[in-house]
Amino acid sequence: MTKDNPASNPKFNRRDALKYLSVGATAAFTPGLASGESVAPGDAQRADVIVIGAGFAGLAAARNLMRAGKKVVVLEARDRVGGRIKSATLAGHKIDVGGMWVGPTQTRALALIKEFGLHLVPQYEDGKAVSQMNGKRTNPDRENMGFDPQTQAEYDRLIKELNKLTDQVPLDAPWNMPRAEELDAITLEDWLRANTTNEDVLAVMRMLTRADFTADPFQMSFLFFLFYLKSGDNYDTLNAFENGAQAFLVKETFHQVTVRLAEEIGNSLILEAPVRKVAQDAQGVTVSSEKGEWRGDFAIVSVPLPLSVRIQYSPPLPPERDLLAQHMPMGSVIKCWVAYEKPFWRSKGLNGLAWSDVPPCDAYSDATPPEGSPGFLVGFIDSHIAVKWTGRPMEERKKAVVDQLVAFFGPDAAHPIDYEDQDWPADPWSRGCYSVTMGPGIMTTFGKSIRQPHGRIHWAGTETSEKWMGYADGAIRSGERAAQEVLAACKPK
Amino acid sequence: MTKDNPASNPKFNRRDALKYLSVGATAAFTPGLASGESVAPGDAQRADVIVIGAGFAGLAAARNLMRAGKKVVVLEARDRVGGRIKSATLAGHKIDVGGMWVGPTQTRALALIKEFGLHLVPQYEDGKAVSQMNGKRTNPDRENMGFDPQTQAEYDRLIKELNKLTDQVPLDAPWNMPRAEELDAITLEDWLRANTTNEDVLAVMRMLTRADFTADPFQMSFLFFLFYLKSGDNYDTLNAFENGAQAFLVKETFHQVTVRLAEEIGNSLILEAPVRKVAQDAQGVTVSSEKGEWRGDFAIVSVPLPLSVRIQYSPPLPPERDLLAQHMPMGSVIKCWVAYEKPFWRSKGLNGLAWSDVPPCDAYSDATPPEGSPGFLVGFIDSHIAVKWTGRPMEERKKAVVDQLVAFFGPDAAHPIDYEDQDWPADPWSRGCYSVTMGPGIMTTFGKSIRQPHGRIHWAGTETSEKWMGYADGAIRSGERAAQEVLAACKPK
Repeated sequence: MTKDNPASNPKFNRRDALKYLSVGATAAFTPGLASGESVAPGDAQRADVIVIGAGFAGLAAARNLMRAGKKVVVLEARDRVGGRIKSATLAGHKIDVGGMWVGPTQTRALALIKEFGLHLVPQYEDGKAVSQMNGKRTNPDRENMGFDPQTQAEYDRLIKELNKLTDQVPLDAPWNMPRAEELDAITLEDWLRANTTNEDVLAVMRMLTRADFTADPFQMSFLFFLFYLKSGDNYDTLNAFENGAQAFLVKETFHQVTVRLAEEIGNSLILEAPVRKVAQDAQGVTVSSEKGEWRGDFAIVSVPLPLSVRIQYSPPLPPERDLLAQHMPMGSVIKCWVAYEKPFWRSKGLNGLAWSDVPPCDAYSDATPPEGSPGFLVGFIDSHIAVKWTGRPMEERKKAVVDQLVAFFGPDAAHPIDYEDQDWPADPWSRGCYSVTMGPGIMTTFGKSIRQPHGRIHWAGTETSEKWMGYADGAIRSGERAAQEVLAACKPK
Repeated sequence: MTKDNPASNPKFNRRDALKYLSVGATAAFTPGLASGESVAPGDAQRADVIVIGAGFAGLAAARNLMRAGKKVVVLEARDRVGGRIKSATLAGHKIDVGGMWVGPTQTRALALIKEFGLHLVPQYEDGKAVSQMNGKRTNPDRENMGFDPQTQAEYDRLIKELNKLTDQVPLDAPWNMPRAEELDAITLEDWLRANTTNEDVLAVMRMLTRADFTADPFQMSFLFFLFYLKSGDNYDTLNAFENGAQAFLVKETFHQVTVRLAEEIGNSLILEAPVRKVAQDAQGVTVSSEKGEWRGDFAIVSVPLPLSVRIQYSPPLPPERDLLAQHMPMGSVIKCWVAYEKPFWRSKGLNGLAWSDVPPCDAYSDATPPEGSPGFLVGFIDSHIAVKWTGRPMEERKKAVVDQLVAFFGPDAAHPIDYEDQDWPADPWSRGCYSVTMGPGIMTTFGKSIRQPHGRIHWAGTETSEKWMGYADGAIRSGERAAQEVLAACKPK
């Protein structure tokens, strides 16, 4: 499996490394602050810290370690950086087919966007939305679900209940929440059914859960749900556009932030280097990848938690950690982009937001470039619905999505000029998106080991974040935390 | 990772292979019926079928293929055969620290026991049991839970309800059961609470679920629970000793059956050969293990389903299959054996059966050898309780178990002559036991892909069995089914 060891391959050089950078990369690397410290292929394969995964978590960890003077190598399985943040091209424009939105309290993500001089674009919301829920068609105003007054009051009451519970979650140890075992023994669906009989409210809560978690309310522990709400501030922030988690897009794509981070890491980043084994002894770690072996003092594993156990560990992981990973499956989502000559819905007084409890997509929004054309809509096929659509030809999904858009926005929607989608469950290095879900009983049984290092191996990745778990911001925080742990562990030397 | 390629290692020969056989193995291999067909290390690494895993499933598949004239190699990660069937020594006697019991409808397991001339020993049940449930201590007669008459009637009513539903499960496609989505959207705990308020009944149902599934009722889809009941005939068979799933022990150990199967496979079995990658193309499969590469027409993967995705596949698995594996975590159990000079409880009129809702063990039974001494008790630490005890020193568990036995059987229990346990979640090649659980929503969303071959890769393992899923009998059936699939796929050639 070590056929392609760059250290023993005289043809592998910095130019080769460049060509592996993703489509979104600029033409040349900016040498990092610690570029003198980097482990270029061809050098001795030795680093202080070996980071596995070049998503936001791994890149943030690596950068902070390099800035602290550590020699770092980042080993990435894919031929690009960004992980679940990924760009593609639609009608000649760069788009995010992975994580895309950023909100005002996602301060670590915002800091990087600002640092790299990239630009925020507010989510377009002018006009009315389209709601097709529980057999009823409405056109609600912005940030409104289209409920009748009585249903709205019931919805507000329910959210107030949720907020009260959310307030009590200790983010660093949700398993210690008051009545944690009781709240963990029921599903979100159980809680919803026990707390309201209003079918319109239930339909919306189920749809929003699918859209937020890419999993269904009946799959999910209620305690896990509350933790996730608190991690993303609260229910309202998580679901809002303006001032919420979906407040802004990044003009140059969110993926560009990861490209800039990667440029700073420079040739310490090795692409197409899936890691197969992490061994450790009293002196250090040895990381075996398909591009050779690296020896270091510490490793940071930043790949999605369920995939982290597909790496071989020697000595093996403690059983609690392995069981935790087994019990945290990825959600399922296919992100669908449709381009039209113009955002024709705007002239009809519609803002492009649409949601439905009829498949394929749960929700759409307007993602037209700031210059106002072409017109872009982006939709999400989520949870059990995504499982039905994953692995099938893109053309089939395109047809179903366009049919749905015609039902929402009329015959103008029938003639897109371009279509692109990202089938995340089919991606072998993500195997789902956005993040993990915990079923009932898992948080209180297995949760405690989520950030516990395994000797010289530290854990990053958005799943390990207390704040904005499941988001890019959480990934960045997790990488920064893991870097700090490693720096603290280095100190006695 | 292919450092240790036996084909290129002239020192690796049949004698080396012999020393890898487990402690339970006899001194020499019996050449298999198809020994002329076998792929001995040192030969060209070519086989018709490459079987991954030498538990009951893999061994049964391999044997049937060899009997049909196929050249087979079995690659096993461990230094022994048997998988979740394993033997150890307690007070000088061979014991099963993995699967142990066999029942009258487990016809495939019984057939092998008979074929190899091994002996069944009825589970000892003479006398009264000890029940410590819901704060009450009782001494029920055999096959009785110790309920008061009113509670017994309520329990009987509930089981009757379960039996009615169990009857409706189509074993080959439980996701097609009437009201499948509804039954899959609730947990077993939900169903129990909705169907009885009797706390004594609830306590027993929760304890039995932990003992049967090594998972808790709140973790488990009710549809999955019904499927599992039907797979093991029904609730009564699953939980019974006499005439039930716990009717007999194997005098020579259950593990000995796997050793005999392995002897028949002979030197086509390669131990300590963890498989890291299975690649396939139009012509065949290439299986890469830590003992070299094999090329064949088909592969059968028989490792526990959640671990099957830790092997790398090229091309990658279809997303539905990967997601299914992510959503089927292993249960947790530690099996604890305690030896006394004599089965002292028998002279007190007790049969050694004991169950409790106070940790550590959910249930004990008498596993004294047929000659009547020493006295053996075997107990199970299950589900979330096992997660608390896994990975800790055996001495800690021994103390807790012995303390519990003193509470059940009096001060005579305080002085065991030997103790042994098997911490299954800590075993890197099982990572849990007995089998998997499905949370709510998983069966109807992901279930369909459980036996769907991936090109030239076929799936075995007890998790893929319709009948006796989770049991050795199911493993054997799954291996026989996979062998049949492969033979059918060979035919057009």
